[in-house]
Amino acid sequence: MILHHEDIVQLETRYRANFINSLGGFKSLVLVGTRSPEGNDNLTAFSSLFHLGANPALCGVVVRPNEPKQNTLGNILNTQSYTLNHVLPSFYEQAHQTSAKYEEGLSEFGEVGLTPEFHAGIYAPFVQESAVKFACEFVQKIDIELNGTFLVIGKIVKIIVPDNCLYADGFVDLEKAQTVTCSGLDSYHSTQRLSRLSYAKVGKAPARIEQ
Amino acid sequence: MILHHEDIVQLETRYRANFINSLGGFKSLVLVGTRSPEGNDNLTAFSSLFHLGANPALCGVVVRPNEPKQNTLGNILNTQSYTLNHVLPSFYEQAHQTSAKYEEGLSEFGEVGLTPEFHAGIYAPFVQESAVKFACEFVQKIDIELNGTFLVIGKIVKIIVPDNCLYADGFVDLEKAQTVTCSGLDSYHSTQRLSRLSYAKVGKAPARIEQ
Repeated sequence: MILHHEDIVQLETRYRANFINSLGGFKSLVLVGTRSPEGNDNLTAFSSLFHLGANPALCGVVVRPNEPKQNTLGNILNTQSYTLNHVLPSFYEQAHQTSAKYEEGLSEFGEVGLTPEFHAGIYAPFVQESAVKFACEFVQKIDIELNGTFLVIGKIVKIIVPDNCLYADGFVDLEKAQTVTCSGLDSYHSTQRLSRLSYAKVGKAPARIEQ
Repeated sequence: MILHHEDIVQLETRYRANFINSLGGFKSLVLVGTRSPEGNDNLTAFSSLFHLGANPALCGVVVRPNEPKQNTLGNILNTQSYTLNHVLPSFYEQAHQTSAKYEEGLSEFGEVGLTPEFHAGIYAPFVQESAVKFACEFVQKIDIELNGTFLVIGKIVKIIVPDNCLYADGFVDLEKAQTVTCSGLDSYHSTQRLSRLSYAKVGKAPARIEQ
């Protein structure tokens, strides 16, 4: 099936949303935890996390101009604090359910059945059920005028990973940590390692790293 | 293992790169194909693709300020055209190898053993071996001053997917298409579906979508 630009713009809205979201490949799935200045917690699934740099340690997420993620954005701007929590197969359905449009003031933690966890120095709640999780300090919001979305960039200020998933070279074995990936708007997947590969050099085929 | 900000900044450079890249979860892996105005082809693996919107159909990638991806950026700016090609288990090692620092003028297609494929109206080469692939027209470059990286935003103008992977609601079954995901800097994975879930609504648990 080949679609040209004229075909793409004529697709039915929901069909196009499924289709175009699928092209992004398998995506990072995280629950973003925030807390309002009044102390109301908010938790929402994002599939747009991207790595921006390791030094300083920076990451970005895309925020759309609609509820419920606006609570997330408001809380981040008001408190400068948010957490990103990987999802496990044991609670991916709850993670999905955080996308429902709950009334303001209701905590998605309570509504979907996940547990807020607090750490000294971090205002926003983590997800207790998550194995790999980290906190960010807000750094920059970039407005994408093309479609009214925002990029939120944060500095990673606290990291929690299971000891047995962290290797000697700094690699975190997300498969061992059971981190889930997603595709399209609503499909969830676990993974099976093909291999780690050695640093790519001209004239030398990459070697498999055994672990 | 818990790391605080003071710990993160003191990590050894390569260790930190492995570690911080791992936090991004399972990531979209694409080969970006470009062609210089003189007709030299370039192909590089990116793990930072993110979905930006379906209407208009937009996506972004993070480009770092170093070779060999600068050829990619230069070609995109000069020709406005690039392709994004999903990777299969049959050629993920070649995809990894495109990151080696080949001399300017050498085509990574030839060096790693992948085949350029051209389509009418699209200047940049696709990867023939890819099942799911699409072409973008350059729209915007955003400079991230914090660390000198760039976000390149493009409009999706042509899409190629296998007929048997495209469902009636527009969802593309990337698992059937054998799209590979990656984690950290060098780990490659295939996937196993947990489930698709129905649109999240307040007061209703998500249902599994059977297909």
